[in-house]
Amino acid sequence: MDEATGHVGPIDASLTPRYAGPATFALLPRLGEVTSADVAVLGVPFDTGVSYRPGARFGPSHVRESSRLLRPYNPATGLAPFAVQQVADAGDLAVNPFDIAEAITAIERGADALGGSGTRLLTIGGDHTIALPLLRSVARRHGPVALVHFDAHLDTWDTYFGAPYTHGTPFRRAAEEGLLDPEAGLHVGIRGPVYGSGDLDTDLHLGFATVTCPDIEAEGMRGVFERIRARVGDRPVYVSVDIDVLDPAHAPGTGTPEAGGMTSRELLAALRVFGGLNLVGADIVEVAPAYDHAQLTGIAAAHVGYELLCAMGERAVSAP
Amino acid sequence: MDEATGHVGPIDASLTPRYAGPATFALLPRLGEVTSADVAVLGVPFDTGVSYRPGARFGPSHVRESSRLLRPYNPATGLAPFAVQQVADAGDLAVNPFDIAEAITAIERGADALGGSGTRLLTIGGDHTIALPLLRSVARRHGPVALVHFDAHLDTWDTYFGAPYTHGTPFRRAAEEGLLDPEAGLHVGIRGPVYGSGDLDTDLHLGFATVTCPDIEAEGMRGVFERIRARVGDRPVYVSVDIDVLDPAHAPGTGTPEAGGMTSRELLAALRVFGGLNLVGADIVEVAPAYDHAQLTGIAAAHVGYELLCAMGERAVSAP
Amino acid sequence: MDEATGHVGPIDASLTPRYAGPATFALLPRLGEVTSADVAVLGVPFDTGVSYRPGARFGPSHVRESSRLLRPYNPATGLAPFAVQQVADAGDLAVNPFDIAEAITAIERGADALGGSGTRLLTIGGDHTIALPLLRSVARRHGPVALVHFDAHLDTWDTYFGAPYTHGTPFRRAAEEGLLDPEAGLHVGIRGPVYGSGDLDTDLHLGFATVTCPDIEAEGMRGVFERIRARVGDRPVYVSVDIDVLDPAHAPGTGTPEAGGMTSRELLAALRVFGGLNLVGADIVEVAPAYDHAQLTGIAAAHVGYELLCAMGERAVSAP
Amino acid sequence: MDEATGHVGPIDASLTPRYAGPATFALLPRLGEVTSADVAVLGVPFDTGVSYRPGARFGPSHVRESSRLLRPYNPATGLAPFAVQQVADAGDLAVNPFDIAEAITAIERGADALGGSGTRLLTIGGDHTIALPLLRSVARRHGPVALVHFDAHLDTWDTYFGAPYTHGTPFRRAAEEGLLDPEAGLHVGIRGPVYGSGDLDTDLHLGFATVTCPDIEAEGMRGVFERIRARVGDRPVYVSVDIDVLDPAHAPGTGTPEAGGMTSRELLAALRVFGGLNLVGADIVEVAPAYDHAQLTGIAAAHVGYELLCAMGERAVSAP
Amino acid sequence: MDEATGHVGPIDASLTPRYAGPATFALLPRLGEVTSADVAVLGVPFDTGVSYRPGARFGPSHVRESSRLLRPYNPATGLAPFAVQQVADAGDLAVNPFDIAEAITAIERGADALGGSGTRLLTIGGDHTIALPLLRSVARRHGPVALVHFDAHLDTWDTYFGAPYTHGTPFRRAAEEGLLDPEAGLHVGIRGPVYGSGDLDTDLHLGFATVTCPDIEAEGMRGVFERIRARVGDRPVYVSVDIDVLDPAHAPGTGTPEAGGMTSRELLAALRVFGGLNLVGADIVEVAPAYDHAQLTGIAAAHVGYELLCAMGERAVSAP
Amino acid sequence: MDEATGHVGPIDASLTPRYAGPATFALLPRLGEVTSADVAVLGVPFDTGVSYRPGARFGPSHVRESSRLLRPYNPATGLAPFAVQQVADAGDLAVNPFDIAEAITAIERGADALGGSGTRLLTIGGDHTIALPLLRSVARRHGPVALVHFDAHLDTWDTYFGAPYTHGTPFRRAAEEGLLDPEAGLHVGIRGPVYGSGDLDTDLHLGFATVTCPDIEAEGMRGVFERIRARVGDRPVYVSVDIDVLDPAHAPGTGTPEAGGMTSRELLAALRVFGGLNLVGADIVEVAPAYDHAQLTGIAAAHVGYELLCAMGERAVSAP
Repeated sequence: MDEATGHVGPIDASLTPRYAGPATFALLPRLGEVTSADVAVLGVPFDTGVSYRPGARFGPSHVRESSRLLRPYNPATGLAPFAVQQVADAGDLAVNPFDIAEAITAIERGADALGGSGTRLLTIGGDHTIALPLLRSVARRHGPVALVHFDAHLDTWDTYFGAPYTHGTPFRRAAEEGLLDPEAGLHVGIRGPVYGSGDLDTDLHLGFATVTCPDIEAEGMRGVFERIRARVGDRPVYVSVDIDVLDPAHAPGTGTPEAGGMTSRELLAALRVFGGLNLVGADIVEVAPAYDHAQLTGIAAAHVGYELLCAMGERAVSAP
Repeated sequence: MDEATGHVGPIDASLTPRYAGPATFALLPRLGEVTSADVAVLGVPFDTGVSYRPGARFGPSHVRESSRLLRPYNPATGLAPFAVQQVADAGDLAVNPFDIAEAITAIERGADALGGSGTRLLTIGGDHTIALPLLRSVARRHGPVALVHFDAHLDTWDTYFGAPYTHGTPFRRAAEEGLLDPEAGLHVGIRGPVYGSGDLDTDLHLGFATVTCPDIEAEGMRGVFERIRARVGDRPVYVSVDIDVLDPAHAPGTGTPEAGGMTSRELLAALRVFGGLNLVGADIVEVAPAYDHAQLTGIAAAHVGYELLCAMGERAVSAP
Repeated sequence: MDEATGHVGPIDASLTPRYAGPATFALLPRLGEVTSADVAVLGVPFDTGVSYRPGARFGPSHVRESSRLLRPYNPATGLAPFAVQQVADAGDLAVNPFDIAEAITAIERGADALGGSGTRLLTIGGDHTIALPLLRSVARRHGPVALVHFDAHLDTWDTYFGAPYTHGTPFRRAAEEGLLDPEAGLHVGIRGPVYGSGDLDTDLHLGFATVTCPDIEAEGMRGVFERIRARVGDRPVYVSVDIDVLDPAHAPGTGTPEAGGMTSRELLAALRVFGGLNLVGADIVEVAPAYDHAQLTGIAAAHVGYELLCAMGERAVSAP
Repeated sequence: MDEATGHVGPIDASLTPRYAGPATFALLPRLGEVTSADVAVLGVPFDTGVSYRPGARFGPSHVRESSRLLRPYNPATGLAPFAVQQVADAGDLAVNPFDIAEAITAIERGADALGGSGTRLLTIGGDHTIALPLLRSVARRHGPVALVHFDAHLDTWDTYFGAPYTHGTPFRRAAEEGLLDPEAGLHVGIRGPVYGSGDLDTDLHLGFATVTCPDIEAEGMRGVFERIRARVGDRPVYVSVDIDVLDPAHAPGTGTPEAGGMTSRELLAALRVFGGLNLVGADIVEVAPAYDHAQLTGIAAAHVGYELLCAMGERAVSAP
Repeated sequence: MDEATGHVGPIDASLTPRYAGPATFALLPRLGEVTSADVAVLGVPFDTGVSYRPGARFGPSHVRESSRLLRPYNPATGLAPFAVQQVADAGDLAVNPFDIAEAITAIERGADALGGSGTRLLTIGGDHTIALPLLRSVARRHGPVALVHFDAHLDTWDTYFGAPYTHGTPFRRAAEEGLLDPEAGLHVGIRGPVYGSGDLDTDLHLGFATVTCPDIEAEGMRGVFERIRARVGDRPVYVSVDIDVLDPAHAPGTGTPEAGGMTSRELLAALRVFGGLNLVGADIVEVAPAYDHAQLTGIAAAHVGYELLCAMGERAVSAP
Repeated sequence: MDEATGHVGPIDASLTPRYAGPATFALLPRLGEVTSADVAVLGVPFDTGVSYRPGARFGPSHVRESSRLLRPYNPATGLAPFAVQQVADAGDLAVNPFDIAEAITAIERGADALGGSGTRLLTIGGDHTIALPLLRSVARRHGPVALVHFDAHLDTWDTYFGAPYTHGTPFRRAAEEGLLDPEAGLHVGIRGPVYGSGDLDTDLHLGFATVTCPDIEAEGMRGVFERIRARVGDRPVYVSVDIDVLDPAHAPGTGTPEAGGMTSRELLAALRVFGGLNLVGADIVEVAPAYDHAQLTGIAAAHVGYELLCAMGERAVSAP
């Protein structure tokens, strides 16, 4: 702890081995150990909204365990994300696994409570269902946001088994509820078969533009950076990363894997774009540890989280 | 197929390798391929009732894949279970993963439909939540049954997060609904810590006797066989096998593992006791393949299913 | 089923969860459930021809299990492959694992029987030995075909331990038997050491052109698309995909892995080229599930199969 | 927390799912959250003393993650170990992985600091090297202790590569330093080949009696209970459990596995004997998570820890 | 090396870590490094005879890697097996994987060549097909032998797919060829379903007695020791251990696993019986590493080999 | 063996299956089987210098087992590396795992002894600590070398826990000792967070240039080839490959994985550059098999070794 400012960084790895001690995200202090936090890392262990492989309820603890190697300075952006802003680990929300509606309410309340005082949230899921209450909470503070959504899937389906709130529907609901700026939504990394061409039409009508993996394969990543900047502009932007945007080779530990995805190197590069934008919140979802190997997926997710924290920190530095 | 009788057995493994073709249970015919079935093997891929590791929704396909080596004659009991009775694979029930109540209703209806014409069911879960609708259906035909329940856990808790129907509560509900003969319930294999001593008292009041794993360690299995026979007598008996009754060494692929369990050799021996009893239905639950290795758990579950089918067949032989 | 046409598509995933029910390829109907099929997906569980890691006999069931997430519409090509043509799962051929010669004969007969009425085959192996009898059957109907062969290895060796028919020799034998158009063969993805420079000379004399992985690394994939189109023209083309064409990161579950391979994104892009060509048959081989993790290889193979079915469907649409 | 007494138990699992929140041992409070502790669970992530497979440095976090299912009441002994005594998680000692001597000093100091006020320690390793400084600390408070040592190996070798302090030597050093009561040492579970018959002689001269696994196979566990009681009497007793005392089937995740070991059911039964004895400290070592599957070894170790805490609690209850 | 006698033992583990250097069995010398050998450990990497999971071709290297921890002195029998006799690792036979008949011939010749000068063989498979040529070679030197066969399966089937030589038929063929003493054959550990009751009758007629796993569960192991001694007497005895005699919990890495098997502790105890008998040869087969975890199966097989070498050594000591 | 020259190549795979026999690197002869060697492949099983996941002590045997598929001719460079030079497997150095200083001395002596007669070394680690003594030995013969270092990490830290010699410090020490040409050092593949911007400054002062993974993502690999050639020129060059330079998707089995790495295809292409340079030695380190899957990492490392041997061979061919 810096005695003058009360700022607390991660553990000192020259004194404590990285494999020792509690696995908070990046070995940062718990929220209760700091006076206030600019950014809180929040776990939402909930996976009742999944339609295929469950297990993302173990995502928060797995990503934290996989984040032990994250160090304080990011050479790729020249920023020390835990020094320019106070980041703390807020632990997990306790969410009812047996009732989706009750869970969504609890997540919304939890996000409101944590984010109320201006703290931005980096949330670790859990399945993609949780993005809806997180967006509700963000929109309450910032108005409709630009959503940049990294995923293999659109997640703008209507219902599944008659259920309106699942991991395939959060952005349909969010658009319907006016949480998203309809001029500014962007999917990145979409691929694989869908139910019909109507899925794409609907998505378009909801205000989303799309960069697919075949697009990336054909044209490279550079265009993606431009698309993101052009689409978002100076709007408040929320980034939602479904880890299945990565190829299964890079993220086997997920619930609905699709071949032909992004590499972790591409994804991390794309996330660095947000350093110049107004990133007001973010989530990383669908890490299902039972299908992971050697923390492959967990480590990718931890680095995703790190780049998102750096992007938030860049704003903190540049803000007046 | 036996042209005279229409009886259909499993594939002929001297002509078709066991690893080839669709993985019905024990490579038996599908229900649609036989005129009628004495026993139907039914999958119920549902795991929304779990409180810890999910994944048992993949249990039915995993157990079927793991059952390819089951051959037609059981030397341990001197019986050919697929010859003395027509056994067929009824496939899976399509059950809503997002709504426990709706799922329970669907399972009950599915069991009624299949079991209506006297077909006995061997059900492969799925989590233990499914035992309640299965018992409702069985009790509708047979009246209150003797329940012999192999499990590490009592599964007679009241609620969890306020939810009355989960994998920890089926036998509380079943007892309350009068589906169980209160003189004839027996838990086998119970072990590990519980919430409080009251859990045990409640269980006792619901009419259960218990053989714990410490009992088995101290006294051996022979007494267990006697306990089962004495407890069940000539009542109609339903056997519910939570695969976590096995030690995690024998069944790693499950949702709430507890050390200190039964061996598969002990369990299979215990199941042979039911050959002399009136076994009217059975289930095998909580196989979570994402945690399995080399089909260890799947193979154990497949053998459990085989012995249960043999026990049903023994009755078929001895019945007038 | 479409009552008017008798056309049967995959299960309706809004009513049946994708993890439920028998794992036919892409949850399509079985061949016996349709009146006729434009394309049949056939499993050939045979791996006695392998020189290193065996296990591809479990490939067909593994790829099917890994194909449960494939949905009906392909945004990458704007085509619904199961709507424009009737695709059905033909199950597995029963093949003798103890006698390679007998197995080859049985596969040839099986392919003839299925393909006789104009049904094209997408075959899932099994090891690469099976490509020879499949090509014999295809050539019987179409004459010598253009072979486009995705693989780390040439598979044009002569013998191994004196055996003429193994997974390293199918295309040598096919060329010798006149099954291949000597102007139109193409290997894609070749890499790794060989026995000697003579291996390459022989291969050239057999009529093959080659795109190696070092070529792809140096020049990108765009040139590969042109090479395929130029090489194949309007000839009938057969595509054989050894899953080891993918880097081990993308396909660990295979028998003779070589570092430095293709990504699944590259491979899927290359397969879309065949939509404009006359694809008369295809196979996917060398998926060895015992070495797979989290269905990584199985999912890649399932997507490969899906793109091949789309390519076949595109022809169906464009054909007069 | 009990407002009157300040006593804090584990989280309330009816409000917080067991998979949520930080993984303290059995979801108990951290040491800093209680006013004082009767027992502290301490992690010592150190494995530089191993001679074969390393990785036990990840043991403490793995055992804690694997302990999430431990509930508050033990039916096997009729005791609620977290109610009759305050148990808290003391986190991990930060120990230098590059210098064995420095590490041993740090562990000894850490144990002294924690145990100084009468708090008993349940330590989770780490490799067996750590038992020496732990015994020094215990002996400083209690004098020479009876050591009951569950292990496949004697761990009374002299040196290895000239190094006096490794995971094969702690009890040789402890005996030489007078930390052990030479009338009261007992190895349980010893098996597998050794370097020579002299190993056994030396061990005998150091004051150890031994129950081997062949003994257990031949005579059962009942005699073991008697041996323990007879050997220990009313002496202060320290229990050291090398998880490799279990058969590799029950504990694959360890550094020097030997076939033919104990079952977890046998080991848990043996540990219940200590409830009637004066258990002053204990450790569980050699859990190497990289070799574990589905937390098999972690769960076994967690249950071992639970029974040891129960044994300590029984004394707490019975003490005047 | 002992300069006087030329005797060479395993590496000195106080100078060379056990994980270093080439993985000969138990880190013994290669055959070429000794002047002559009393016992040779021979690998036969062949698995073309398997009917289900292949992969035992990698068995020899896996068992050797898993044998690095075997030390020179066996406390269970009080014998140093590498001191009382010269044991050396003979490497692997190069066997054609594409032709069973040719492979059998090569194995027979290889065994004759190695065993010709009185060297006894401990062979590591490979699948059970290899037992036939090994028995031919042994019988050529010793006449018909008593066969004690540890296995889940009888392996006395006639043919499979018309093939007479597979892993399910070696002992039928051996009996037919007069290689076995018809008064002295014994199966131990048999369990699981068979094709029909006729399988058992045939087996009986071939001269085998049987101890099943249900027998062991009911009566314990002590009777097994007596059965072995009584059956074998002073005949030359050959021991064939199919690793699937162990429960899948103890040996997941095998080709045709059956639940309800022996523990490794039981098996090792049974093998110690052979110390008092005339053990002329032995094999360990069906270790399939692709299905193993943490060398669980490999370690069990290594200990099996160790006890067999000890049994051979005991005879060496007691022989005049 | 070539009778005239005494040259010995790898086993003949048309006579011996690649899975048979001892796993020397690429199935090459042991050093003792050749009269002299141009290049020796040396294992250094030492991992006491690691700061996170240990286990690289099993790296040498794992990489050798994973190298069985390497064949004699490299089409990518048109060279037969085992024909143009005598390559042999020198086995492992026996290194004390308990004392880093003693280990470093032993490695230096071992390298001197092997390399003294002009034999170049390809060393397989072990952790990166071993690069220091290897460089000392190389510099003794060649003077300060150009170091090209493929790694995710700089490895130029000063100390860790006060220890000067660990896997994070070898190139700091090497630079300080004058072993490196300060004009010619190059890191390739660096990525992930560091402790502070000072880490980068220090590294620069030590004489290193750096190509990061973000550089590669932005600019491709072609520039890397130029950078290497320009940096090295005709200096003697030593290549050190930490396998974690690869993305965790390509190399999960390593100790300090970082997302966003190189593909194996990129790395192999980069290594081919050294064919035109004066490669005097090389190492491959940080393969930790306990975290590997299906030999993914081992195979990548084996191919890395193969390309390095080819590069050495190219020089052999072109040298006067």
